[in-house]
Amino acid sequence: MTSSFGKLFRTTTFGESHGPAVGVIVDGCPPRLPIDLALIQRDIDRRRTGQSRLVSQRKESDQVELLSGVFEGQTTGTPIAMVFPNKDQRPKAYDHLKDLYRPSHADYTYDAKYGFRDYRGGGRSSARETTSRVASAAIARQLLTQKATIEVLGWVSQIHTIESTMTADEVTFDAVEAHPTRCPDPAVAPQMEAAVKQASKDGDSLGGVVTVVAKGVPAGLGAPVFDRIEADLAKAMLSLPASKGFEVGSGFAGTKMKGSEHNDPFVPGESGPQTTSNYSGGVQGGISNGQDIVCRVAFKPTATIASAQQTVTTDGQTTSLAAKGRHDPCVLPRAVPVVEAMMLLVLADHWLLQRTVNID
Amino acid sequence: MTSSFGKLFRTTTFGESHGPAVGVIVDGCPPRLPIDLALIQRDIDRRRTGQSRLVSQRKESDQVELLSGVFEGQTTGTPIAMVFPNKDQRPKAYDHLKDLYRPSHADYTYDAKYGFRDYRGGGRSSARETTSRVASAAIARQLLTQKATIEVLGWVSQIHTIESTMTADEVTFDAVEAHPTRCPDPAVAPQMEAAVKQASKDGDSLGGVVTVVAKGVPAGLGAPVFDRIEADLAKAMLSLPASKGFEVGSGFAGTKMKGSEHNDPFVPGESGPQTTSNYSGGVQGGISNGQDIVCRVAFKPTATIASAQQTVTTDGQTTSLAAKGRHDPCVLPRAVPVVEAMMLLVLADHWLLQRTVNID
Amino acid sequence: MTSSFGKLFRTTTFGESHGPAVGVIVDGCPPRLPIDLALIQRDIDRRRTGQSRLVSQRKESDQVELLSGVFEGQTTGTPIAMVFPNKDQRPKAYDHLKDLYRPSHADYTYDAKYGFRDYRGGGRSSARETTSRVASAAIARQLLTQKATIEVLGWVSQIHTIESTMTADEVTFDAVEAHPTRCPDPAVAPQMEAAVKQASKDGDSLGGVVTVVAKGVPAGLGAPVFDRIEADLAKAMLSLPASKGFEVGSGFAGTKMKGSEHNDPFVPGESGPQTTSNYSGGVQGGISNGQDIVCRVAFKPTATIASAQQTVTTDGQTTSLAAKGRHDPCVLPRAVPVVEAMMLLVLADHWLLQRTVNID
Amino acid sequence: MTSSFGKLFRTTTFGESHGPAVGVIVDGCPPRLPIDLALIQRDIDRRRTGQSRLVSQRKESDQVELLSGVFEGQTTGTPIAMVFPNKDQRPKAYDHLKDLYRPSHADYTYDAKYGFRDYRGGGRSSARETTSRVASAAIARQLLTQKATIEVLGWVSQIHTIESTMTADEVTFDAVEAHPTRCPDPAVAPQMEAAVKQASKDGDSLGGVVTVVAKGVPAGLGAPVFDRIEADLAKAMLSLPASKGFEVGSGFAGTKMKGSEHNDPFVPGESGPQTTSNYSGGVQGGISNGQDIVCRVAFKPTATIASAQQTVTTDGQTTSLAAKGRHDPCVLPRAVPVVEAMMLLVLADHWLLQRTVNID
Repeated sequence: MTSSFGKLFRTTTFGESHGPAVGVIVDGCPPRLPIDLALIQRDIDRRRTGQSRLVSQRKESDQVELLSGVFEGQTTGTPIAMVFPNKDQRPKAYDHLKDLYRPSHADYTYDAKYGFRDYRGGGRSSARETTSRVASAAIARQLLTQKATIEVLGWVSQIHTIESTMTADEVTFDAVEAHPTRCPDPAVAPQMEAAVKQASKDGDSLGGVVTVVAKGVPAGLGAPVFDRIEADLAKAMLSLPASKGFEVGSGFAGTKMKGSEHNDPFVPGESGPQTTSNYSGGVQGGISNGQDIVCRVAFKPTATIASAQQTVTTDGQTTSLAAKGRHDPCVLPRAVPVVEAMMLLVLADHWLLQRTVNID
Repeated sequence: MTSSFGKLFRTTTFGESHGPAVGVIVDGCPPRLPIDLALIQRDIDRRRTGQSRLVSQRKESDQVELLSGVFEGQTTGTPIAMVFPNKDQRPKAYDHLKDLYRPSHADYTYDAKYGFRDYRGGGRSSARETTSRVASAAIARQLLTQKATIEVLGWVSQIHTIESTMTADEVTFDAVEAHPTRCPDPAVAPQMEAAVKQASKDGDSLGGVVTVVAKGVPAGLGAPVFDRIEADLAKAMLSLPASKGFEVGSGFAGTKMKGSEHNDPFVPGESGPQTTSNYSGGVQGGISNGQDIVCRVAFKPTATIASAQQTVTTDGQTTSLAAKGRHDPCVLPRAVPVVEAMMLLVLADHWLLQRTVNID
Repeated sequence: MTSSFGKLFRTTTFGESHGPAVGVIVDGCPPRLPIDLALIQRDIDRRRTGQSRLVSQRKESDQVELLSGVFEGQTTGTPIAMVFPNKDQRPKAYDHLKDLYRPSHADYTYDAKYGFRDYRGGGRSSARETTSRVASAAIARQLLTQKATIEVLGWVSQIHTIESTMTADEVTFDAVEAHPTRCPDPAVAPQMEAAVKQASKDGDSLGGVVTVVAKGVPAGLGAPVFDRIEADLAKAMLSLPASKGFEVGSGFAGTKMKGSEHNDPFVPGESGPQTTSNYSGGVQGGISNGQDIVCRVAFKPTATIASAQQTVTTDGQTTSLAAKGRHDPCVLPRAVPVVEAMMLLVLADHWLLQRTVNID
Repeated sequence: MTSSFGKLFRTTTFGESHGPAVGVIVDGCPPRLPIDLALIQRDIDRRRTGQSRLVSQRKESDQVELLSGVFEGQTTGTPIAMVFPNKDQRPKAYDHLKDLYRPSHADYTYDAKYGFRDYRGGGRSSARETTSRVASAAIARQLLTQKATIEVLGWVSQIHTIESTMTADEVTFDAVEAHPTRCPDPAVAPQMEAAVKQASKDGDSLGGVVTVVAKGVPAGLGAPVFDRIEADLAKAMLSLPASKGFEVGSGFAGTKMKGSEHNDPFVPGESGPQTTSNYSGGVQGGISNGQDIVCRVAFKPTATIASAQQTVTTDGQTTSLAAKGRHDPCVLPRAVPVVEAMMLLVLADHWLLQRTVNID
């Protein structure tokens, strides 16, 4: 139950970072969708470790193995299973963590929940699990591109205190991919890169914000009550490791505006009403209004740092920990494809759901 | 599907603000729980219109009618149905809205989704629907108080640009209820009240932030992947009308901290490890760690304002609208019990789920 | 969780037979469906007590109260709530049952499950709960008639040892409704009626079989694995009080045929392949093939009988019970609209689901 | 959605018979359950092809590959993934089926549903998919044995017209496994074997009945309305390939009894009331009563036969088909572990659910 996401386009993941493999079953993808495996691999590679000096140097080849659900290049309408064997496991590297609780990690909470813990690399709450989400979402992306006109694009808009002011209209996929920070803004990306390198050198870590936009979403996706599209997006984003906050449209800044400033005036448009501003972030009353859906996701600084920290052992003694091993000084660059993935999964689900509403 | 919330403690709501009634079915509440109807009514009354000059003057008696699931003062384990007849309906007051789309309301998106709209008062996306959620959560509150030690308390921590710096440890239920703003902070509550009254006089509206805390949550509630407790809380909060953002623990502010500052050091405690700070907000890896769970929810300024605004008619002509009728210049005071409700529903669900994990 | 049925066309019921009301929320019905309340009432009335001397004489007016989800005669796409106040309650009539367990009733199992029991009339397992199902299904029927070409018709094909050999092609709605047994076969209906009256006189009860057929189901509804259409039908039927068996197509009789006899030969038809026999009962591999879907449901003899029976008290003493009050000597006549209801709910769900599969 | 089964103990399967692999994710199994891989393999082997001359000669090694969810011999509480590579694929053997519809197979219905078909061996509706179910259920079996006292045992009670009259109390696992028919009754098993061999020689096939019993089920599992335990069992069984009917307790035979005969009298027992007969089949009002839960499942004769049959091509021409290849003349012997599997999955789910009901 707790390892599945989505109602109609349904993603179920499995696997720990240091077991034999991680993987995913995608259930509910419509049949006869041509699948480009290279596009799946592209998003997997964007999430991979070892891409640059800014991220973890763990070497995962992450080559997708497709086990079912695609026949002669098209989806069959049945479950699509994809597996990613874990190649560069070093479980021994975690032996020194067996008997203590890393601060702000899931070690203690795992023990509290399960009475038992796979201490090798974070178990299910490891970022490695998100490989499976990205693979599923790469199918969703192909569905939404081929059968609808929906495009999803994310980028790093803030690292530590360094913020970009670029808007959705100014950002391109190529510009995002061109810089190792995945910040497309030449005015601040180099500063971000320098800050991450400095933090790494200091045995410290940085957080930041990913902004993500969906363009071409038809008006009418969502629901007025619990399954508001922004509610499902919020759940999607807060289900990511290290995330601490979510905003749609004006977000927290909007709380300091007045209604007369914040309301988005309607004007006639070619295919229905348009708005002259987008403080709503593309959703009104839980349902898309045809404007860009814009969200921001807050990520805390990585919990694993090389500096010494105070903590306790599993039997309740005070101790000190300085992390060894290969970790990300800043998850933001690798978080971009994962944030995109979660938005794609939500949109695919609501796009399918809407087909059960429009019945003429 | 889209009108239900929760997996084990399941809330299903129905009803429009201007139909005969709104109501709720609560399914999955364990049997033999003594139910105090006065406590349900207390939370309903906190959410009601007409409590003060700061909120809508619509007069709803909102007397709960219990139709099933309680026998001789205790839950039976079967569905608990509660109905709230709509008493002060004035559907005619909405006739002037029939042929236009109110800015930043769900009017246009409803038409886009359903091809059809009950134009009387916002339909399902009306705040009136939240009465049902509060009633369900009042059952959850009694479950979590009687069978566990969990207490949930919310308050208004910001209206427009006026912010309170009070922390969870300083706030009491009585202090929250003592002021019509539901801000317990005597240093800023009067300013907030004045700001709301001024906005009302100006035909304008204000937004703000509700902070909510759960105390006494045992370590171990939640899940490491999609159903992280903060993910379910994020969905819960973003499913509320007018909400635009969610934070747990350090939230967006935490993105500007370094790992060495943000990590919560563990120290030995009486019933397991404690932390000396709580930037995590009581959750690590999606699972509660026994510290207070602290969340903040952003609400935009109310979309309905008396000032004239530009908009379009349903047939695509430009027009102008100045809202008449009874509306809230600021939803924050009434949002407090609703935010508490959503947190209670999430915690009840996870508390029950955890009983299927601990099986010795 | 346990009081809901269906994934997309979702029925959630509440209420005990001797509380204030029973009722239902129908969620997921598409918008803009014209609703004829008289057709809902028709099916409710077919299920009602007091229709003839063959069934219980409890007098329920069962007038449907529509609380939400229909506006200006059409569905809005939001939850449709319907309530049936319990009018002819006689809870005192059950006082003598408070301290004992009726044989083959849910009394003991309720206590075992909930540790607590509403002893008035069977609680949720009372046949009265099926009123809510019939109301929901009456909406489904209008959906399937207006937007598709699906017709569902049930009849009593066996009471005790008296069996009708009429086939689906020979049965009409009017013939079913013309006889108090709801057996349309003039060759056996009078014998059935006499047998029920004799059983009633003897303080005994009879069981039997309802046959139900869906005509006009398009090929392609269902799923190949867990959610086979016959699997969902089986669950639907076995969720009815007093049901003990389910067959689709050849059922148990088919186990005594050889493959060469049982296989349904394909021949070319106007809108795709047709079969010259229908041992499959309209489903192959879990998916409809365009032929009639034919099912049979076994109902045991009513557990409540006036004759003395051996049983035990709640504190474990041997005792004897002879039921008083108003009960059905044979549930079959009233079971017909309920069996139809469950088939309609399954078909509505799968019909909506199929819209998420065909995406061109 | 349609490839998952269970709410709390959740099984999701993937894979076609002629793709690279089939497999399963088991989500919701409690942590710290010691897992004996040999017991999983035992049930897999019981379901395997090639065990005797009575079943298909396709050679699958079916060695379970465990990819996640078990650490140091115990479940971790996270998803358990198991994969079975398809070794003895002969997709070319199906080329002659590409352009026609086999009678009483899912070929035509697949095309009707998906507009597209993997013609190699039945796709998802192939019996090979049930390997995944048996693997998941082998985990459930260990849960129910170690943490509860529940034992599930199935056997072949009928093939074609040859019936065994052995009752649950007379059957042992060893006796079932001792004969290639999986009928433990020495009085009829040899006749069954001879009948299957003769059918095979004749190019024909036979159906039959599997009886399954759960012993040691505590009273109180189930629910009074939609999720009755017999309803979930019915769905479970009718989700199996080739199944056409389901009975619990007296089933269809019970419809010919009178209430005074059919009611199960209560007598005092050591741990609560016992019944002196078990026409109820261990369930009353949808909830287990502590007696044996006894079900019967009808399987049609295998659709694939070597004799020539009339059918149509995919473009609507009349043709004739005589199946080649390796198929079962009678699925009954291999159906036994699969029927057990479905009962185990239902019981595990309800056993976990009941932990959310009893909350003292």
